[in-house]
Amino acid sequence: MDRHGPFQTYDDTSDAATCAPRLAALRAELARRGLDGFVVPHSDQHMGEYLPAHAERLAWLTAFTGSAGSAVVLKDKAAIFVDGRYTLQVRNQTDTTLFEPRDLVAEGPQGWIPGNLSRGAKLGYDPWLHTAHGVAHLKAACDKAGGVLVAVESNPIDAVWPDQPAPPSAPAIPHVFNLSGEESHAKRLRLAEGLKRVGADAAVITLADSVCWLLNMRGADVPHTPFALAFAILHNDGGADLFLDPAKRTPELMAHLGNAVRVHDPAQFTAALDAMTGKSVWVDPATAAAAIFDRLTRAGAKIRPGSDPCQLPKACKNSLEIEGMRKAHIRDGAALARFLHWFDTNAPGGALTEIQVAETLEDFRRATGVLSDVSFDTISGAGPNGAIVHYRVTRSTNRAVRPGEMFLLDSGAQYPDGTTDVTRTLMVGQPTPEMKDRFTRVLKGHIALATARFPDGTIGMQLDSFARRPLWQAGLDYDHGTGHGVGSYLSVHEGPQNISKRPVMQKLMPGMVCSNEPGFYKAGAFGIRIENLVVVTQPEDLGGERPMMGFETITLAPIDLTLVEPDLLTAEEKDWLNRYHARVLGTIGHLVEEDTRAWLTQATRSI
Amino acid sequence: MDRHGPFQTYDDTSDAATCAPRLAALRAELARRGLDGFVVPHSDQHMGEYLPAHAERLAWLTAFTGSAGSAVVLKDKAAIFVDGRYTLQVRNQTDTTLFEPRDLVAEGPQGWIPGNLSRGAKLGYDPWLHTAHGVAHLKAACDKAGGVLVAVESNPIDAVWPDQPAPPSAPAIPHVFNLSGEESHAKRLRLAEGLKRVGADAAVITLADSVCWLLNMRGADVPHTPFALAFAILHNDGGADLFLDPAKRTPELMAHLGNAVRVHDPAQFTAALDAMTGKSVWVDPATAAAAIFDRLTRAGAKIRPGSDPCQLPKACKNSLEIEGMRKAHIRDGAALARFLHWFDTNAPGGALTEIQVAETLEDFRRATGVLSDVSFDTISGAGPNGAIVHYRVTRSTNRAVRPGEMFLLDSGAQYPDGTTDVTRTLMVGQPTPEMKDRFTRVLKGHIALATARFPDGTIGMQLDSFARRPLWQAGLDYDHGTGHGVGSYLSVHEGPQNISKRPVMQKLMPGMVCSNEPGFYKAGAFGIRIENLVVVTQPEDLGGERPMMGFETITLAPIDLTLVEPDLLTAEEKDWLNRYHARVLGTIGHLVEEDTRAWLTQATRSI
Repeated sequence: MDRHGPFQTYDDTSDAATCAPRLAALRAELARRGLDGFVVPHSDQHMGEYLPAHAERLAWLTAFTGSAGSAVVLKDKAAIFVDGRYTLQVRNQTDTTLFEPRDLVAEGPQGWIPGNLSRGAKLGYDPWLHTAHGVAHLKAACDKAGGVLVAVESNPIDAVWPDQPAPPSAPAIPHVFNLSGEESHAKRLRLAEGLKRVGADAAVITLADSVCWLLNMRGADVPHTPFALAFAILHNDGGADLFLDPAKRTPELMAHLGNAVRVHDPAQFTAALDAMTGKSVWVDPATAAAAIFDRLTRAGAKIRPGSDPCQLPKACKNSLEIEGMRKAHIRDGAALARFLHWFDTNAPGGALTEIQVAETLEDFRRATGVLSDVSFDTISGAGPNGAIVHYRVTRSTNRAVRPGEMFLLDSGAQYPDGTTDVTRTLMVGQPTPEMKDRFTRVLKGHIALATARFPDGTIGMQLDSFARRPLWQAGLDYDHGTGHGVGSYLSVHEGPQNISKRPVMQKLMPGMVCSNEPGFYKAGAFGIRIENLVVVTQPEDLGGERPMMGFETITLAPIDLTLVEPDLLTAEEKDWLNRYHARVLGTIGHLVEEDTRAWLTQATRSI
Repeated sequence: MDRHGPFQTYDDTSDAATCAPRLAALRAELARRGLDGFVVPHSDQHMGEYLPAHAERLAWLTAFTGSAGSAVVLKDKAAIFVDGRYTLQVRNQTDTTLFEPRDLVAEGPQGWIPGNLSRGAKLGYDPWLHTAHGVAHLKAACDKAGGVLVAVESNPIDAVWPDQPAPPSAPAIPHVFNLSGEESHAKRLRLAEGLKRVGADAAVITLADSVCWLLNMRGADVPHTPFALAFAILHNDGGADLFLDPAKRTPELMAHLGNAVRVHDPAQFTAALDAMTGKSVWVDPATAAAAIFDRLTRAGAKIRPGSDPCQLPKACKNSLEIEGMRKAHIRDGAALARFLHWFDTNAPGGALTEIQVAETLEDFRRATGVLSDVSFDTISGAGPNGAIVHYRVTRSTNRAVRPGEMFLLDSGAQYPDGTTDVTRTLMVGQPTPEMKDRFTRVLKGHIALATARFPDGTIGMQLDSFARRPLWQAGLDYDHGTGHGVGSYLSVHEGPQNISKRPVMQKLMPGMVCSNEPGFYKAGAFGIRIENLVVVTQPEDLGGERPMMGFETITLAPIDLTLVEPDLLTAEEKDWLNRYHARVLGTIGHLVEEDTRAWLTQATRSI
């Protein structure tokens, strides 16, 4: 399972000088096709967060390498849309004389098009790279401008990208029962009941993590996430069609899939959609490519819009998956303890750099022998770089780890039995009173969420404020969510649940894995985040009248006591911290070498 | 301003024996009109919570007197829909052999109609008693059944209700500047700007509290709420048409309204709608009668659907209104102190009853000389009656106040300068440890909400959990919201803000008045609720980076220390309670007689 590595690179991969010739080439291609403009989203056919290299069209065109964004190219102007995380980065990366940076959230292409597209102009889009909901927004914007939105048959960027990589074809492998905890045929029959209940003949499954979960399959088609990219159609008898590149098919996988899963060439996917005439087909307009809706509509299928039916069952982990997550976190905790010991020994000398820290952490994880990948690019931020919420270190930004500064480290691992995601904020030298105050407030919020009990029906938004209250009371806050869902050897970000200020209406359910990661950021100075993963527990009798759910914390790593101001903690909060640290030592201590154990014993001392 | 009283009655006003003849009369009338059924909602033309007597059609037909509900009468069956508060009461009041009790929230008429209305049947409804949204739901339900929804020209119940009261015609009076804090013409010009911004020529204002707020007018058309019932049309030049019964017009009001408000007979309202051909008209489909949409559509007006434009500005009280609310609460606090002293002196003898308690409280309030009304029927619940969340005592349920039991008292007053709403839970004799534990948890939740700080953009749902957490941690909860909006000498329940588990997306804004009323109910044993009103404060610098809003508590009444378990309170919570009690004594002490002051000094002692 060890894919070697290193899994993270630190090169500055983009160059603003490429923008002008590439934009000119695209405009020439659009002119050849009779188009006045084109929309370039950051997406692939599966609407995934991480794209295979050949789908990095936005980065190729604009040199912007962020994880979300979109560009609109017109004849005489072009705009690039990014969210608040990337307002600085986009100006560093793209040629802003060609691409005007705009706000993705407040405005977006749909807000910009009405004032910029000419009346009668034809704006192209690739229907495989936008959801049905997304196209509806683009269409409304074009209507306002008096323009026309036109679906292209092939992507014009592919025509002018000479060295575009080939689509990925990593081997797809089985995700066996002792990891998945439920056979694929059992999952499929369970979902087939749901299809029958609403009168659907079939469901088109387009999200890579849904296809992989449903068929207990994994792969290596995209960075940091063990996806085998493929489409599937689930039928209401529990049978399925899987559209998987022959190059990815391993004998183990084919045997594992069994007879009820018919495997086809990806090129046959559209023909399969065309053949669904008269069928009632469940598709998710929020996540499936618009092209799928177009084909089904043209074929005379009856579309039944609904959320991807895999999302909720996938989010509620079964007991074997939870057991796997616990094991992965113990293994990861031992690697983290070794790393933290190393950091504590070497950082005060002032000779480390952000890249060295991230590389060393990856090394310790690789030494487990079962690391498949890191679960995302490590955020390794020294001093003021820690205040950049989605900082990714490159050779040009690489900062020394200096005494008197805080160090923010957000990282994770992909092991076959589970996915991890953990953030620790480390003090090099002695903290200021302000640093301790802020860190302790973040810790109080973390503990408030970790210890929360809540009844059936509670959504994440109702708990999010517990994590913020100690900051709010001091006039402070942080501009990101408190918790995202985490997959089981799948994506480190998954829905449908969410713990944030956003009204995501999915209630929390037993078995869901979420992060608990309040933070605080002082621009130009330091960043703080304390992140553990938690599992939603079964309703439990607390001696009252209603069983309550809660969270089991599964991440095991010491929280830097140098930064804790004990006078700000209540007796209950101190008790939580001491019991958590005792658990870390008790679980991890015997797995690490004696010098690390001695360090860990000190790092987890009672306060 | 003293309207005398008593304002609350305790008679059992309904009689199930009337159901059969009245239902038969209605069915005969429906047959005469060629209708197969009729929907009877609990509403008037203004969709108010309190109905004028002539609009109590649901109570007349079904004998059910709850504040929300609906009935559907068909040829051979009939159903009555009530929410969870009224499942017991409806069975006590109505003839369940005639009206089958059903769940208003989970099913409602729209859920019941598809399985019960015959194909081709004609179901009548009064378009003045349903909102446009409500009619859309009824229409969809009739479509499913293959039936037809038919608007009636006149209400068939009015045709068979021989002693139906006349519509109310209480004098309408000015709400003067030192109470309203903003002249009507200023409000109208402010709103007119909003109309112009969206290109609307006019807005139809249908909610009684909106009309009264906009025109700085009050009246006495419905119980417990100083409404003058009327419709209004606001034009985008700041002028308005008011449709007000001539019998209600006082010379003071006519002078106060001024020339820019043209006053018409209510009968001319429909003609005014019919004359809006070609105009862009703002109407609220969630609160305005469907009949208004029907007329405007037929007249060829361009309907611009949107929330009632008065709701948000009305909810954000200006500084004079807040000052009035504070004064009203000081006055109310003095009356409450006298009452609580009386209760504490007399209750232990065991000779008081729930009705006597409510009457005496009303007497103490009336003695202020400026009581216009109680703001709702006092909830006066002894022992197990306190566990019935919306209990209304009648002569047949009237229970003695017994030693060893808790007493729950939720009441409020209408004074011209402000509306109050306060709940106290009083111990008669000595509490059990369970009572103290539960009470103290409710108090902790109350304090957590009272002391919360929060940033701009926060909605009530994000704060609601603060009030529930001490209960959740012990496996307990309560099945009602934590806070509702409160009007300024208007309705004691108003929107658009709300603090509850429901995702009401209106953010909290400075000047909004809300209740803070967590509770706990042990069925058959006792009920606990601690309710104060709070005002959302201006954003304030707390020494952090972001100004934060918070709550100013304006209710002033001691919280029963007999029920407080000090060991369950943190130092901060004790400090809040002691400071609150010191403020109650400091503000109210000098307003009451010496014996009450002595009692209050003891009741507000530090713990």
